[in-house]
Amino acid sequence: MHTDTQMPSASGGRIMLVGIGPGSTEHMTLRAREAIAEADTIIGYVTYIRLVADLIEGKEVIRKSMTEELDRAVEALARAREGRKVALISSGDAGVYGMAGPTYEVLFQAGWTPDSGIEVEIVPGASALNSCAALIGAPLTHDFCAISLSDLLTPWPVIARRLDAAAAADFVVALYNPKSGRRTRQIVEAQRLFLRHRHPDTPVAIVKSAYRRREHIVLSTLAQMTEADIGMLSTVLIGNSSTFVREGLMVTPRGYANKYDLDEGGSAREGERAGRSLSTGLNGWLAGLQEDLAAGIALETLAARHRLPADYLRETLAEPLDLLVASEAEEGGE
Amino acid sequence: MHTDTQMPSASGGRIMLVGIGPGSTEHMTLRAREAIAEADTIIGYVTYIRLVADLIEGKEVIRKSMTEELDRAVEALARAREGRKVALISSGDAGVYGMAGPTYEVLFQAGWTPDSGIEVEIVPGASALNSCAALIGAPLTHDFCAISLSDLLTPWPVIARRLDAAAAADFVVALYNPKSGRRTRQIVEAQRLFLRHRHPDTPVAIVKSAYRRREHIVLSTLAQMTEADIGMLSTVLIGNSSTFVREGLMVTPRGYANKYDLDEGGSAREGERAGRSLSTGLNGWLAGLQEDLAAGIALETLAARHRLPADYLRETLAEPLDLLVASEAEEGGE
Repeated sequence: MHTDTQMPSASGGRIMLVGIGPGSTEHMTLRAREAIAEADTIIGYVTYIRLVADLIEGKEVIRKSMTEELDRAVEALARAREGRKVALISSGDAGVYGMAGPTYEVLFQAGWTPDSGIEVEIVPGASALNSCAALIGAPLTHDFCAISLSDLLTPWPVIARRLDAAAAADFVVALYNPKSGRRTRQIVEAQRLFLRHRHPDTPVAIVKSAYRRREHIVLSTLAQMTEADIGMLSTVLIGNSSTFVREGLMVTPRGYANKYDLDEGGSAREGERAGRSLSTGLNGWLAGLQEDLAAGIALETLAARHRLPADYLRETLAEPLDLLVASEAEEGGE
Repeated sequence: MHTDTQMPSASGGRIMLVGIGPGSTEHMTLRAREAIAEADTIIGYVTYIRLVADLIEGKEVIRKSMTEELDRAVEALARAREGRKVALISSGDAGVYGMAGPTYEVLFQAGWTPDSGIEVEIVPGASALNSCAALIGAPLTHDFCAISLSDLLTPWPVIARRLDAAAAADFVVALYNPKSGRRTRQIVEAQRLFLRHRHPDTPVAIVKSAYRRREHIVLSTLAQMTEADIGMLSTVLIGNSSTFVREGLMVTPRGYANKYDLDEGGSAREGERAGRSLSTGLNGWLAGLQEDLAAGIALETLAARHRLPADYLRETLAEPLDLLVASEAEEGGE
C-alpha cells in the first residue's frame, strides 16, 4: 500500500515535519527549503529556528524551549486546523529522535486521520550520525546502532541492555544525547558496559555541532572518551572491533579484505568468488555445520563456537536443503 | 582536533563522496548538487548515475556495475592524481554501506595522506532508513540498528549474532540488502531469529525505491514479512515491542506516556518531573537497587530481574555515591 499522507487535502491545513540536516544551509535538502518556504507558520526549538533564520522572514514564528516537544505538536495541530501550513523544524532527521513521533502521537490522540483534511508530510534529512561520520572519515560502513543516553523518557535498564547488546554483537554505535548538565554519569556507564566487550583502544569520535560555527571534533579511545568535552550538542561514535584510525580519520572496513587480496591487484582469495556470498556466508556456513555434526561434534559445542543460541542452529538445520538452491539471477554488489 | 580533509590543496585533485539521498532531486542537499556541479568526472553505479542525469551533462561519466566498488575507488584516485575533480555518487548516505569506506581503504593502500595534494570530502545525505521511515510514519523515534543481510563480505554468524542481539534488546531494526536473486534465505533466517524474541504481530514495513518512480510500500508483520515482495531495492523496517500501526502509519512511541498523562492535558505523572530523568532513570534505578540489596535481595536476582550482567550491577554499585550528585544546570529535552 501507499500511505496517502502526501496527498493534497481539501481544507489546506498542513503539517510538515522538516529535518534540516546538521544545520548549515548547504546540507539541507531542496524539499526542506521548499517546505519552509511554503509554510506560513514555523515552530521549533529556538536553536533550530536560528539555523534557518534567513528562510523565515515574514512568517509567524513560534519558538519553543527544548522541554516543550508535545507543546510544539499541539500548537502545530491547532494552527493546521485553522487551515495554516505549519513547518515543524527538527535538526538532523525529523524521524530520528525528532518531532515525527510526538507529532503522530498527539495527532492520533486528537482523533486525526489521514483523510481528516490535515495533511502530514515528513521531510527526511541527514541525521547527526550521518553528518558526524562524514566529518571524521567512514566509521559507519558496517552495521551500526543509534542509542540515546537520555533517561528522561526511557528507564535506564532498557538503555543499559541495548548498550550491552550492541557492544557484545560488535556494532558501531552512535550515542545521542550523551551528556547534559544533570546527566553526567550515563556516559560513564556506557563506557563501563562497552569495556566489558571491546578493547580499551577502540576508536571513539566525539563530534560537537557538526557543520556549524562551533564545530569541534575529538578522536579518542574507549578508555579515554569520558575525559573529553562532551555535551548536549555532541554525538559520540564508538567503532567496532575492526575500526581503525589512520591520518586522523576513523574508518570501519566494509570487509573487502575478507574476500579480496588487496595487495595483489584485488583478485578474489582462494575459495571466494566476486559477486557471490562468502564461503562463510549463510549457505557455506550451514554446509560446514552439517559436516561438523556428521564428524560427531555436538550441536551445543557448535553453538558456543559461533556464539549463537543452540535452538537457532537446531531450527535452521532442520529446514529442507532445497532452500539452499539459489536462483541463477546475478547478485549485485560487493 | 579538526580533520583537515576539507581544506583546499595545491594540486587541485579532489575526490567528493556524494550521498544523493533517496534519488529524487528534491531530497538531495544543496552541497550534493554543488559537488556534482564542481566535478569534471562522475563515477558511480549505473542506476545512481541515471538518478542525477540532469546534473552531469558535458562531464566525463564512468559507469560501473554494482560489483565494481573497489574499481570505482581506484578509478577515482587515478583521476584525482591527474588533478581532476571527481564525484563518486552513492545513493542515500555515502558513509552508510556506501563508497566512503572502500575509498579510504583504497587511498590508504596507495599511501595517500590528507596533505598529499588530493582532497577528500564526504557529503552526507539521508540514508535509506531515513527516507523509508519518512514515508511510513515515525518508526525510528527510538533506538535503532541498521543491519545488512548481505553475506558477500560478512560471515553469516556475525550477521546472525547482530540480528539476535538487536531483537533481544528491543531495537527498531532496518535491514539493508535484505534479499537478491541468489540470496533468498537470509531474510527467512532474520525472521527466525527475531521470532525468538518478538511477537509475531510486530509491525514490519517493506519500502522499495523510496521517493522514486517505482516506490512501493507494504505494511506487514514479523510473521508474514517473508511473503511480501522484497528485493535488492527494498529496505525492511522491523518495529520494537512498542511500535504500533494506526491509520496505515507505523509509529514507535518516544516514551512520553512513561512520564506524562497524555489524556490529562499532558501533566507529569506522580513521581516524575518535566525536564528530569525518569524515576526509573539511572539515578533512581541505582537508588532502587541499593534499597533492594538492603532488603536482602541477592545481586544475582536483581541482575536477572533487569536482564543485565551481575558484574555490571556489582561494578556500578561500587562507584562512590557522589557521582550521583548532578549539577544544577538546566536539562533540555523530553
